[in-house]
Amino acid sequence: MEKMKIIELKESILEDNDQDAEKLRKELEEKKVCLINLMSGPGSGKTTTLLALKKYFDHKIRWGVMEADIDSDVDAVRVQEAGVPSIQLHTGGMCHLDADMTRQGLNSFGRDDLDLIFLENIGNLVCPAEFDTGAAINMTILSVPEGDDKPVKYPLMYEVADILVVNKIDTLPVFDFDKEKMEKAVYARNPEMKIFYVSSLTGEGIAELADYLIERVKEVNA
Amino acid sequence: MEKMKIIELKESILEDNDQDAEKLRKELEEKKVCLINLMSGPGSGKTTTLLALKKYFDHKIRWGVMEADIDSDVDAVRVQEAGVPSIQLHTGGMCHLDADMTRQGLNSFGRDDLDLIFLENIGNLVCPAEFDTGAAINMTILSVPEGDDKPVKYPLMYEVADILVVNKIDTLPVFDFDKEKMEKAVYARNPEMKIFYVSSLTGEGIAELADYLIERVKEVNA
Repeated sequence: MEKMKIIELKESILEDNDQDAEKLRKELEEKKVCLINLMSGPGSGKTTTLLALKKYFDHKIRWGVMEADIDSDVDAVRVQEAGVPSIQLHTGGMCHLDADMTRQGLNSFGRDDLDLIFLENIGNLVCPAEFDTGAAINMTILSVPEGDDKPVKYPLMYEVADILVVNKIDTLPVFDFDKEKMEKAVYARNPEMKIFYVSSLTGEGIAELADYLIERVKEVNA
Repeated sequence: MEKMKIIELKESILEDNDQDAEKLRKELEEKKVCLINLMSGPGSGKTTTLLALKKYFDHKIRWGVMEADIDSDVDAVRVQEAGVPSIQLHTGGMCHLDADMTRQGLNSFGRDDLDLIFLENIGNLVCPAEFDTGAAINMTILSVPEGDDKPVKYPLMYEVADILVVNKIDTLPVFDFDKEKMEKAVYARNPEMKIFYVSSLTGEGIAELADYLIERVKEVNA
């Protein structure tokens, strides 16, 4: 197994992140690389969902993963061991990534040949929602055990996301999770949200999510 | 039901939060009010755990809760409806509380007659760990569905916490959670950590946690 590449990101000094993010989005558009910013609270199953998507992506699109963490490289190693090109980004304590940090990661990754790159953001429902990374698509995961009230408590995340993946639906019988209440709270903040129900453990719903993502990637790179 | 008191916190302008936190800690010591800063990721069960403790606290200590949220007042209403004195603090988008914001909350709450005040921090494993609130005790919750790797990924939280409550242990049969691996990662960062295993839903382990907290409150206020 190849040694995991770990990049220590430098804190950005740019003042206008929105402008920088717009610039990065255009650069990626020209390179036909679709960047998806994957956000969630800690332990919602970001890495497990990416690994579950693998068998549906293989031979259909070329893809890779940038794993952002404060410390450790456990996620990037898991992804690499599954045979997906990946790189570990360390934020040095920072609670989110912005466009400049994302660009540092992309430059180190050096994989302009990929159709799709996932940026797995820091597990945090607050700060990552505040910073545009330059991604074409924002995707967030809410796992059933976290509860149906998260869209009410962390509204910005549900405003900036294009896709909501409700994960761990195999545990719906164990937890008190009201899908209707959750959807109502989401659509009140974001009527355009595309919602998928999956279990990254059992694989339920993953094929549909994969099909949708492949179509979106083709649209973005067209 | 009395209307919920909602306080919009102002962002601090103080430069030295550590110094301010030390000052607040001394003030609370003199008033014999023990402040516990309760932190966790989103949906770990902070509010549910506080409500589970209630029957063991009643008639033994006088206590109340300050609920910090970005938006909404669902948690504070739940606590108030259970008959526990509470106040809702709104951070206006901020991802954590510092000592000055905590003092604003305490002043608005105006309950120096209580033995114990919980500050339920924003659901976030990153930023709250970086800011001393002036609390005598830092307590963090990790719920089983979040996974046993959280101490590796969010090390600072496990360094600053005095008490770790592992919640939702009734779901241990459903999730792949290695207690030994988790404890090893915690003790490597914090050999003094006091760990409790509870289910706030079934009540398992809550009596032991309550007994310990009551003893600690007495020590702090002695």
